[in-house]
Amino acid sequence: MAAEVGRVVCVASSREKKYQSLPEIGHISGDWSYAHLTSNNTIYGTQWQQFPTSEVPLVCDMSSDIFSREIDFSAFDMIYACAQKNLGIAGVSLVIIKKEFLRNQQIFPADMLNYQKHIEAKNLLNTPPVFAIYMCYEMLQWIELQGGVKKLEELNRRKAEILYSEIDRNSLFTGIAVKESRSIMNATFRLNNLDLEPLFNQLCAQENICGVEGHRRLGGYRVSMYNAVRYSSVEKLVGIMQLLEKQA
Amino acid sequence: MAAEVGRVVCVASSREKKYQSLPEIGHISGDWSYAHLTSNNTIYGTQWQQFPTSEVPLVCDMSSDIFSREIDFSAFDMIYACAQKNLGIAGVSLVIIKKEFLRNQQIFPADMLNYQKHIEAKNLLNTPPVFAIYMCYEMLQWIELQGGVKKLEELNRRKAEILYSEIDRNSLFTGIAVKESRSIMNATFRLNNLDLEPLFNQLCAQENICGVEGHRRLGGYRVSMYNAVRYSSVEKLVGIMQLLEKQA
Repeated sequence: MAAEVGRVVCVASSREKKYQSLPEIGHISGDWSYAHLTSNNTIYGTQWQQFPTSEVPLVCDMSSDIFSREIDFSAFDMIYACAQKNLGIAGVSLVIIKKEFLRNQQIFPADMLNYQKHIEAKNLLNTPPVFAIYMCYEMLQWIELQGGVKKLEELNRRKAEILYSEIDRNSLFTGIAVKESRSIMNATFRLNNLDLEPLFNQLCAQENICGVEGHRRLGGYRVSMYNAVRYSSVEKLVGIMQLLEKQA
Repeated sequence: MAAEVGRVVCVASSREKKYQSLPEIGHISGDWSYAHLTSNNTIYGTQWQQFPTSEVPLVCDMSSDIFSREIDFSAFDMIYACAQKNLGIAGVSLVIIKKEFLRNQQIFPADMLNYQKHIEAKNLLNTPPVFAIYMCYEMLQWIELQGGVKKLEELNRRKAEILYSEIDRNSLFTGIAVKESRSIMNATFRLNNLDLEPLFNQLCAQENICGVEGHRRLGGYRVSMYNAVRYSSVEKLVGIMQLLEKQA
């Protein structure tokens, strides 16, 4: 949408590498109103572990990994995240925005797309989706019960560690994202021998593991390990990968 | 918002009558792209019983009375309704739009505000608020179980009838909306003697009747009788109004 209301310049992309790694950019500078990036790519399974520094305001879409790990929010002028990964259910988004950045925003001729108007109306510009907001409240309580984001991050890193270790160890599988860019939320990988897919799918189904097929653009497998996914569930998948290696 | 992207002309208003009646307009004609009206005014308790005829496309906000009564949808080029009155929970809206009207719409530089884009994307332009949509499905099932919109309309008219009859009969109360414009969804009225408000409020509270205070702009009382409100609940309120008359 940005391209329809302003000039958009792509300052870094890994398109040529088929998005299997993060763009190579450590620092952003230039005469831009803001720079936009996405913290975690759910399709390709890549994730910024260290964000680029920036001389222009940074805007970040954290929809798929907010509250999965500790992040220095102060580095960003604006963060937005739809709720349906780690925060709640679809239908509500969280927006964190610096007052100074808010003041400089271009006025868009639609109140619904103007954060200042939402703030002025105390979030009552539209009828709030109460149930979805309540679910966020419940999820935030749950996060605290787990020991907070710090503890969840530890667990998420352990979940990712056992899965990536198996992908790298197991002769049947190959990871898609390059190691340095791997996401702890979404692991993408392929079976080296596609003929084994039916058997692997069957073993997964037998253990009630579902939703691990890759994005339609990419194929292969994608295992999402959002906060709600248990360590034991990832262990079970690893067990199936080991079983497949023995049977194949 | 319309005024920010195009020219808006008010062809009829009851502002001078403090919105206590519907605007006096039976037929709409002119060189307009469309005419917009709202089927039911929840604040003032007015409702179109017979819609004006129109030579220009009619767009109607039916948020507060859709599925409360049978309506000839074919008279409208577009109908929209947020779900949280009779259809479901806040967070989702129903849009009914004629293909021809859709083709003629002005392109707005934001896909989210462009119905054509939503249709092309098969409603997947955004992540659908699945729970809110599911609740609509459950509500539609419930409407069918009640005997459909026809039966609900009968019941809604009976609910409105006993309440308005009491407002007109009871010497302590006066209706706000004029009779011809009264809404079967939201009845607005006042106590002639404001000193009786605390006692009336107390009697309501004792019977677990809540949310009957008028809109902050209008004061007095507003009783909403959406599909989910039972006939017996309205009867109970009528009983309290009669009790107040005896005690006062």
